[in-house]
Parts: sequence; C-alpha cells; structure tokens
Amino acid sequence: MSLTESLKWRYAVKKYSDQRVNNDTVQTILEAINLSASSAGLQPYRVILVENPEVRQKLAQQGFNPQIVEASHLLVFAAIDNLSEAHIDEYMQRMADTRGIPVDALGEFRKLLVSNISERTPEENFIWATKQAYIGLGTGLAAAAELRIDSTPMEGFNPVQFDEVLGLKEKGLRSVVLLSLGYRDPEKDPYIHAAKVRLPLDVFSSFVK
Amino acid sequence: MSLTESLKWRYAVKKYSDQRVNNDTVQTILEAINLSASSAGLQPYRVILVENPEVRQKLAQQGFNPQIVEASHLLVFAAIDNLSEAHIDEYMQRMADTRGIPVDALGEFRKLLVSNISERTPEENFIWATKQAYIGLGTGLAAAAELRIDSTPMEGFNPVQFDEVLGLKEKGLRSVVLLSLGYRDPEKDPYIHAAKVRLPLDVFSSFVK
Repeated sequence: MSLTESLKWRYAVKKYSDQRVNNDTVQTILEAINLSASSAGLQPYRVILVENPEVRQKLAQQGFNPQIVEASHLLVFAAIDNLSEAHIDEYMQRMADTRGIPVDALGEFRKLLVSNISERTPEENFIWATKQAYIGLGTGLAAAAELRIDSTPMEGFNPVQFDEVLGLKEKGLRSVVLLSLGYRDPEKDPYIHAAKVRLPLDVFSSFVK
Repeated sequence: MSLTESLKWRYAVKKYSDQRVNNDTVQTILEAINLSASSAGLQPYRVILVENPEVRQKLAQQGFNPQIVEASHLLVFAAIDNLSEAHIDEYMQRMADTRGIPVDALGEFRKLLVSNISERTPEENFIWATKQAYIGLGTGLAAAAELRIDSTPMEGFNPVQFDEVLGLKEKGLRSVVLLSLGYRDPEKDPYIHAAKVRLPLDVFSSFVK
C-alpha cells in the first residue's frame, strides 16, 4: 500500500493490546530511522530502545502517558548535547572509511561543519540536533505505519528524569521525544474510529505563482 | 518497494536535471506531509510551494544552494510565529466539524493546549512549532523517495529574506527549512554514486535491557 494510505491508517494510539512487536520488525523501523536525512549527514542524535518493564515503570512515574508502559516497545530519541569537533572528526572518519577516500580530502567539508557549530551557542546546537531527531521521528512514524505497527509520538515526559534513569547524561545525550510501538487495542482505545483531523490541503499548503 | 529501500535510494541531490515533476505527484507529497503527526495534532506550520522561476532567483540570492533555483519545485516549511488561543480555537472547531461533535465537548482538551502554549515563551513556542515542521519534513522525504522523486532538504538559507520575498510575516509565519523536488542529473551530480554514510545500527541505537 502507498505511504499516503499508511499515513491515513496510523493515529496516535492511546491504548495498546498485549501483543508484542517482533524484534526483526523493530530493527527494520530502527534501520529506517538510521537512514533518515540529517543536516550535513551528521546524525546528531541517538535512539534508545527500552523493552524492560521495570525501567519503563520508572520512566512513566513522572509522565501522564500510560503508553510508556503499555506499548510493546519504547523508543527514546536523544539529541547530542554539546556537539563538538570530536563528533565532526568521528563523522569525517566514517565518511572516509565508507567511501574509501583519505580523510584529508574532507578538509573543506570539515571546516564548514566546525564553523557551523562554532557559530551557534551550545543550546542552539542542541535545538538544531533536536530538529534532526524529529526528521528521524517522522521517518519512524512512516516506517511503523508501512509495517502496520501502531505507534504514539510523545512529548509529555520529564527529560531530566528520563536522562537520569537511562544514564544519558554520561553518554552526552538528552532525551527529546518518544515513540512507542505496538498494536492498538480495538476494544479499549476510544480513538480507534475517530476521524483524522487535518487542515484542508489548500490551507496547509499554498502556492506562490 | 519498501520504505527502507526507498530511503537507501534517496540522497540529497546536488544537481538536478531539467525534468519537471508533474503536479499530481507534488500534490501527493504535500498530502503526505499534511497527514504527518504533530504534537496534539495542532499542525503549527504551513508549506509554501514555489514554482515561479523569478521568485526562486530572488530566494537564491542570499543562499549557497543552487537547488533553490534548479530543482523542479521548492517547498518552504514555515512555522507559525506567536501561537495563540485563536489557533487553538480554530483547531477545536475543525475537530468538532470533522468528528461531528459540539465544540464544547472539547473544553478540557482546549484548556490543556492553552496551558501548554501559555507556559512557554513565544520563542519556545516557535521552536516547538519548528520541530513539528521537521516531522513533516521527514514525511516529505519519505513520500518523495517512495515515488522516486529526488529531493534535497536545506537549512542553508536566510529566513528573514525568505519571509520578506514570500510575504510570510504578514501571514504570521517564519520559514524554517526547505525541501526541493525534482530529478537527479545522472551526468552532473558528483554524489550520484557516493555510498551513503550512516552510523552502524548498533551505535545509532542502543538497547536498555
């Protein structure tokens, strides 16, 4: 089925069934997210897959989304905090290795990226990294829907608490948005038959002649 | 073909051919973006489709991306500036109309959304709206790739100049990111055979047991 059909099928699930998503399918969704575009290709974020029920109980304590616990899987998108030249050098090395070119050939590109992150404050770099994570979120939503896996994107959580429980600070990461995966409960989800609410296309998009 | 295959096929095109994307296909991509998830469903952004060559010449003057002019179509994602209760009321009315319920039945939901935007500064609301636009960008990239339409996401432009040329300020919008659409030039794009550079999946995503 087309992506448009898949996007019409999806909605933000409120109530999940007990059915588990199999691991291969979760990996396919993660692979799609990893293939997402990001500015200059830097991928300044990571995705943490949380399956453990006890950890998820802890995470849900300060949020109001039962999906954190009830979904089959929980993905935590975390942006790199304090982007540095080290991240860029790592990327340059990866590019050189992947494309079989000497890393010195990437000198101009490296200079441009270093200048980009130097011109911004650490907080601006973090916001920029977060935006790239949201491209990945968009991809993850599309990938899940194509596979007829239900999902819920969530911003309603306490990032400081998440970072602590998941040990993200030590990894130089800060959690920014969540995506739960699973299967809708057709009996108990009150929104299962709710019509999708969207702007008329000619209001959402306009045409400059 | 699967979304994963489509995402492997896509890359940020540097050099487009003269071939035009037909209008129905562009509408399909816009429709997919309009179907994207957004926080609470508020869709706090718009997409401006620019086809006119003179306007695009003007837009390209302060940027370094020739794709702004050379691609078949240019989409400008613009986030709502100064989100207000009026935007929320409009959304409540749309929801009531779409679902055939009285708008008064949405009182609690309205209160929650108003409280969300009131707790944030105008700049924080704008950043939040921008993040939602990036979910749409992720969807647009996936939708174009599925249809084998090439694209280039771009942050390298002057938003103030774009807003002026496109008259966005008067519409309460600020441009945040671009997506050009078209067909790669197989002769002239130097990156057409470049291997995609991505993090190993076990570095990009980690598993909390």
